[in-house]
Amino acid sequence: MNGDVHKIIEEALPLVVPSEEEIRKAKDAEMELRRRLDEVLKNYPHLEYRFLGSYARNTWLKGNLEIDIFILFPEDTPKEELERIGLEIGKSVVDEYELRYAAHPYVHGIVKGVEVDVVPCYKLKSAEKIKSAVDRTPFHHDWLKDRIRGKENDVRLLKKFLKVAGIYGAEYKVRGFSGYLCELLIVFYGSFLEVIRNATEWTRNTVIDVPAGKVYRRKGEFFVVDPVDPKRNVAANLSLDNLAKFVQICREFLKRPSLDYFVEREPEIPSDEIIAEEIESRGTGLCAVVFKKPDIVEDNLYPQLEKACRRINDFLRRENFLPLRAGYFANESKCVLMFETQVGELARIRRHEGPPFEEEEHVERFLKKERKYKPFIEGGKFWVYVERKNWKVEDAISDLIRRDWRSMGKNVGEKLKEGFDVLTGKDVLKVEGREFRKFLVEFLCLK
Amino acid sequence: MNGDVHKIIEEALPLVVPSEEEIRKAKDAEMELRRRLDEVLKNYPHLEYRFLGSYARNTWLKGNLEIDIFILFPEDTPKEELERIGLEIGKSVVDEYELRYAAHPYVHGIVKGVEVDVVPCYKLKSAEKIKSAVDRTPFHHDWLKDRIRGKENDVRLLKKFLKVAGIYGAEYKVRGFSGYLCELLIVFYGSFLEVIRNATEWTRNTVIDVPAGKVYRRKGEFFVVDPVDPKRNVAANLSLDNLAKFVQICREFLKRPSLDYFVEREPEIPSDEIIAEEIESRGTGLCAVVFKKPDIVEDNLYPQLEKACRRINDFLRRENFLPLRAGYFANESKCVLMFETQVGELARIRRHEGPPFEEEEHVERFLKKERKYKPFIEGGKFWVYVERKNWKVEDAISDLIRRDWRSMGKNVGEKLKEGFDVLTGKDVLKVEGREFRKFLVEFLCLK
Repeated sequence: MNGDVHKIIEEALPLVVPSEEEIRKAKDAEMELRRRLDEVLKNYPHLEYRFLGSYARNTWLKGNLEIDIFILFPEDTPKEELERIGLEIGKSVVDEYELRYAAHPYVHGIVKGVEVDVVPCYKLKSAEKIKSAVDRTPFHHDWLKDRIRGKENDVRLLKKFLKVAGIYGAEYKVRGFSGYLCELLIVFYGSFLEVIRNATEWTRNTVIDVPAGKVYRRKGEFFVVDPVDPKRNVAANLSLDNLAKFVQICREFLKRPSLDYFVEREPEIPSDEIIAEEIESRGTGLCAVVFKKPDIVEDNLYPQLEKACRRINDFLRRENFLPLRAGYFANESKCVLMFETQVGELARIRRHEGPPFEEEEHVERFLKKERKYKPFIEGGKFWVYVERKNWKVEDAISDLIRRDWRSMGKNVGEKLKEGFDVLTGKDVLKVEGREFRKFLVEFLCLK
Repeated sequence: MNGDVHKIIEEALPLVVPSEEEIRKAKDAEMELRRRLDEVLKNYPHLEYRFLGSYARNTWLKGNLEIDIFILFPEDTPKEELERIGLEIGKSVVDEYELRYAAHPYVHGIVKGVEVDVVPCYKLKSAEKIKSAVDRTPFHHDWLKDRIRGKENDVRLLKKFLKVAGIYGAEYKVRGFSGYLCELLIVFYGSFLEVIRNATEWTRNTVIDVPAGKVYRRKGEFFVVDPVDPKRNVAANLSLDNLAKFVQICREFLKRPSLDYFVEREPEIPSDEIIAEEIESRGTGLCAVVFKKPDIVEDNLYPQLEKACRRINDFLRRENFLPLRAGYFANESKCVLMFETQVGELARIRRHEGPPFEEEEHVERFLKKERKYKPFIEGGKFWVYVERKNWKVEDAISDLIRRDWRSMGKNVGEKLKEGFDVLTGKDVLKVEGREFRKFLVEFLCLK
C-alpha cells in the first residue's frame, strides 16, 4: 500500500502547481507593477521595493496567486510617515484597491486581474530589531530564497494537503500552519513526503530547531524555531488540536495514500429534518446564542468569540449543566456561540453551604434568615436548600450574558449587550445558510 | 430571658423524675427478683448477681424503667458455659421472656410488670482485661455510684433533653448519647445546666478527659475518655452530625429556655397531597428503593442500610446525577433507601475519553471501533460521544443494585438481590405509614 505514495504525489502535482496561463498572467502583472513602482519611487529616492512572499519564491498554490510587494523605509522614518507614504504608493500602483490592516494599514488591490498587497515596512540590519511582524518578512525571504530552490512543488503539495484538512493559515479563524511554516518544514525535512513521515512522530513537546538542524522535546509547546529570530516560535498560532489533527492525517495518508487528501470537496450535509431528529433524540441541552457580527477584522473577531465561548462554557460547568462541547461560528452578518450540555434542566433547588457547627455566630446568622426549607446538618456543617435562579440552561446563559457581557471581548461584548437571541434544541436550525450547517454537523459529531 | 432557665428546669423535673407509683412498682419487682435470684443461685455457688445500670443508680428516666441484672461468672468459665447457664438463670427468674443479642445472647423478660434484662458477664479484676463490652458494666457502676449521688435528676433532665431531640441512645439507629455518657457528663460538669453551658463550646476536636479532669482539643474526633478504660471513647458511637445537633440545641435552649425541650411531641405532617405537590414542583430526581427487611437486629441492619445508601449515592455522584441527599428508613417489614438528585434525566450521550494524539497505536485502536458519532480532538486528546446506558436516575440505580448488590451489606444485599421496587417522584408516597412520612418530611427538609 505504502508503495502508492509516490504515485499519488505524482498525480497530485497538477492539482497544486499553477498552470502556464496562471504563471503568464502573474508575470504580466509583475512587469506592469515593476514599471509603475519604478515610476512612482522616482519621487521617493530614499525608498526601495521588493517582491517577497510565495510569489517571489514561486511557491504559491495553484489558484491562490497573490503578489506581495514590500516598500522598505529607512529605520528612522516616523511611523506616521511610513504609513502615510506607504498607502500613497500602494494606491498609486494598483487599479482598484481597499485598505487592510495587519501591523500597519496596507493596500490590497488588483493589477491586470491579479491580487496584490503593497505593504510598507522598515529596512533593518538585523531581524532581532524588528518593530512589527512585517519587518521580519524580508529576512524570511532572504533566508528561504536559495534554500527552497528546487523544492517549490513540495511546498505546494504541503499547502494543499493542509488546506484540504482545513488547517492551512495562521490566522485566528484557522489557527493552522502559515505559508512560511510550510516552507521552513520543507527546507528542514527536504521534501513533502519527509515532512509527512516525520510529522507522525511529533508531540506537543516537540521542538524543531531549524537553525541548529535538530529536533528534540521540551515541556511547553510545539515549537518551530525561526532561523531569523531564534526566540520566535513560527508555530505559535498553531493550536494543539490542529497539530494533533495534522499528525493523525499524516499517519492515515501514509497508511492509505489517496488523491482525496489533495482535493477540496464540499461535505455532504444531512437534511434539516434529519439534523432536527438527531437533536431531539439525544436529549441534550443545545443552545445557540445569535447576535450581530461586530464590524471588525477576523483576526480580532475570532479571539473574542473564543473568549466569550469559554466564559459561558466555564460558567455552565460551574453551574453543573455538564457541558459536552462549546463552539463558535460567524458569517458576514451574524455570530453564533453554540453550547451542548448533558443537562438541559436542573432541579429547582440546590444545596447552599453554611458554616461548621462550631462557628456559633455564623450559625446564628445562617439560621436566622427567612427560608423556604428547613436547614440540615451534614458532615458537621449546616446546609439549606435554596431555590435556583435559573434551572434551564438557556435561561442561565441569557442571565450570565446580561450580567457579564463586559468579560466577553470588547466588540463581541458590546454587540451582546445590544441584544441576542438564544435558540434551543432543533430551533438552532433557524440560523440560515449552508456554512452554518457544515459547522453544526461538525459540532454535533454527525457522520 | 436567660433568668428563666432555672425556672424551666424546675418545671421540667416532674416530666423526668419517676412517680412514687413507678418507684414502688420497681421496688416490688426488685424484691421479687432478689428472692428468685437467691433461690436459683443456690445451685451455682460460684456465681453472684448484681443490680447495675440506671435502675441501680436511680437515674432511670420516668416511664423508661428497665432493671438490669448482671450474672457474674469466674474469669476461667468457658464462653459456651457462660452463655448456657446465663440463659438458664435468666429464664428461671422472669415471668415471660425473649432472647436478645448483644455481645452474648441474654434474657429480656417481665417481672411484676417491669422490664428486666438478665445479662451474663465475666467478673474481672481490671476493666482493661475485658472480653466483651458487657464486662465493662460493673466497672462503670463502681466508678459512678458514689459520684452520681445527689445528681440523679440532672442525669434524667439530660436524658430527656436528648430524647426529645432524637439523639438519646448509642445504638446504630440513633448514633446519639448513651446513658453512661449522660452520667459521665453530669459527674464531669456537675449539673445538667453546666453540661448544656459547656456543650455550646464543644467542637469535633474536643476531648473531655474525665479521669484527668480536663478538656482540650485534639485533631481526630469528639472524644470522652472512659475513666475505667482511658483508651476507650465513650462517645465513639455519637455521630458528628448528632454532636453538632446537640451543640446547636444547647445554644438555642440557653438563648430561649422553654419546657418544649422536655416534651416529646408528634410532629405535624402535611397531607400526602401537599407533599406530592412539593415533590412535583421541585423538579428533582426522587427515588425510593423499597425491599423486604432482613430478619436481623437493628444494630446489624442500620450499618448495612447506611453502607448500601452510601454506595448508591457515590455512584450517583460519579454518574453526574448531582445528588442532593441520601437517607434510609426501616419499619417492621420494609426497608427504604431514598435518594434525591438535581438531575432526573441526563442526555442520551456522554463523552468517552480516548488517548492523547501522540499514542499512535492507541489512537488507531480507538478510531477503528465502529461508532455512531465521529470522534473529535480536544486538548490534544481524542474523544467520542457514546450512548449512555442509563440516562434516568431510577434506571441507573436499578442497574447498579443488580450488578453490585454484594457490596451493599450482607443481609441487605441478599434481600436486594431477591428483589426491590424503585418508586419515583410522588410515587414514593406509596410507601405506607406515618413513620415513613415523618422520615420523608425530614428528608425533604419541609417545614
